Amino acid sequence: MAQSVLLTGAAGRVGQAVLGDLADEHEWRLMDRDPPTDDHPGEFVVGDVTDEKTVREAMEGIDVVIHLAGDPRPEAPWDSVLTNNIDGTQTVLEAAANAGVEKVAFASSNHAVGAYETEDRTPEMYQPHDDYLLDGTELPRPGNLYGVSKAAGESLGRYYHDEHGLSVVCVRIGNLTQGHPPIDYERGQAMWLSYRDCAHLFDRCIRAEYDYEIVYGISDNDRKYYSIDRAREVLGYEPRDNSAHHDDDPSA
Amino acid sequence: MAQSVLLTGAAGRVGQAVLGDLADEHEWRLMDRDPPTDDHPGEFVVGDVTDEKTVREAMEGIDVVIHLAGDPRPEAPWDSVLTNNIDGTQTVLEAAANAGVEKVAFASSNHAVGAYETEDRTPEMYQPHDDYLLDGTELPRPGNLYGVSKAAGESLGRYYHDEHGLSVVCVRIGNLTQGHPPIDYERGQAMWLSYRDCAHLFDRCIRAEYDYEIVYGISDNDRKYYSIDRAREVLGYEPRDNSAHHDDDPSA
Repeated sequence: MAQSVLLTGAAGRVGQAVLGDLADEHEWRLMDRDPPTDDHPGEFVVGDVTDEKTVREAMEGIDVVIHLAGDPRPEAPWDSVLTNNIDGTQTVLEAAANAGVEKVAFASSNHAVGAYETEDRTPEMYQPHDDYLLDGTELPRPGNLYGVSKAAGESLGRYYHDEHGLSVVCVRIGNLTQGHPPIDYERGQAMWLSYRDCAHLFDRCIRAEYDYEIVYGISDNDRKYYSIDRAREVLGYEPRDNSAHHDDDPSA
Repeated sequence: MAQSVLLTGAAGRVGQAVLGDLADEHEWRLMDRDPPTDDHPGEFVVGDVTDEKTVREAMEGIDVVIHLAGDPRPEAPWDSVLTNNIDGTQTVLEAAANAGVEKVAFASSNHAVGAYETEDRTPEMYQPHDDYLLDGTELPRPGNLYGVSKAAGESLGRYYHDEHGLSVVCVRIGNLTQGHPPIDYERGQAMWLSYRDCAHLFDRCIRAEYDYEIVYGISDNDRKYYSIDRAREVLGYEPRDNSAHHDDDPSA
């Protein structure tokens, strides 16, 4: 049965990757601050996630929320991430809990743990043979205030799961690029997420059953220092791409 | 050598416990939204931690900050903890980093991990013989939005340590009561913090050397489910009280 999915931040890059492969798979309600410039599946709500009334109305009849909206800039100033990312995520989770939504997939970020990449560990940790792995059980260690805001969103998700019964998965998204992995950038290759793996991962977030999870959203890259075991086990994530072999996968 | 210590939220309960024993031990600059009603050591700045200019001025010449200010109510609404606790803590840490402050001790809370107290574990975990222990390496699991705000403060502290070099210790304060532990309240007895242990613990936060730490702030209670090993090892915390023996310690 198709599920009704609210996608916030639909016009952003992750939203476009998701819709590129999944437009016909679910009943979509898209939300973005900016009106659509292109064809799109389903309904479109123009509005800001910090606007409680708009968010409350957008939740009606929704089974699953994919919450991508927020200031996506790693260098975003505090006031913007406080409002758009932290307060915006609380508004979405509160409305989802009140509306009886089942699941929320939250776009967290590699920046929530960016400061694990210390001088001592880099660049060795980006090499295929290096076995350093983060697995989602570690404490946040943000490299910027944007990362702090994503860690706060993860804690909010934990709270709304424990106290309000929402299923919540936080996806620490790596480096999403279309067509091929970042060139001459080992860190970006280590955390590459192809468009089709991104769409597949969020499809699994819509379909799988879970309680509260933090997973890494990257392709199956030889260079990876983020474990994808939990995403495989809990969500049934089966990535098809690997930044080491991208020439084999022209559709990535 | 006496250190110059800025104490925010000086008029609150933790502030009063700290000043009760340490008034003569350091050079104090006290800050609170409300003007003092009593004798107090050192200078007093009337101001709000969300006011950047006041906070910046209050940091001048300061070695150590003990940041207690914020909405202390476990049931505080989101808007209040977003502003007073999350934004206020960012303002304090940013100003401390810019002013060249050495150390910040942040008043986190047991509420940052309150939801570990699940139906399955309680009330067994409050019993002296039960060996369930949280030690500060676990992910936040807030039982309320106040706890979410404290977890966000911990992530902010991590960021300001990693990226700006501040020494930061987050103290997950238990149940602070004067004179004796909570009566007929096993959970409160498990996480009791006596006034004199509270003052001693923050004195250690002022004097010890550390990088980034999360420690539990409780007395050495038989019932405890929070480890105090890290506070002992890193800070040299030596609690004198135990809620099981409080009759022996009338001065607690």
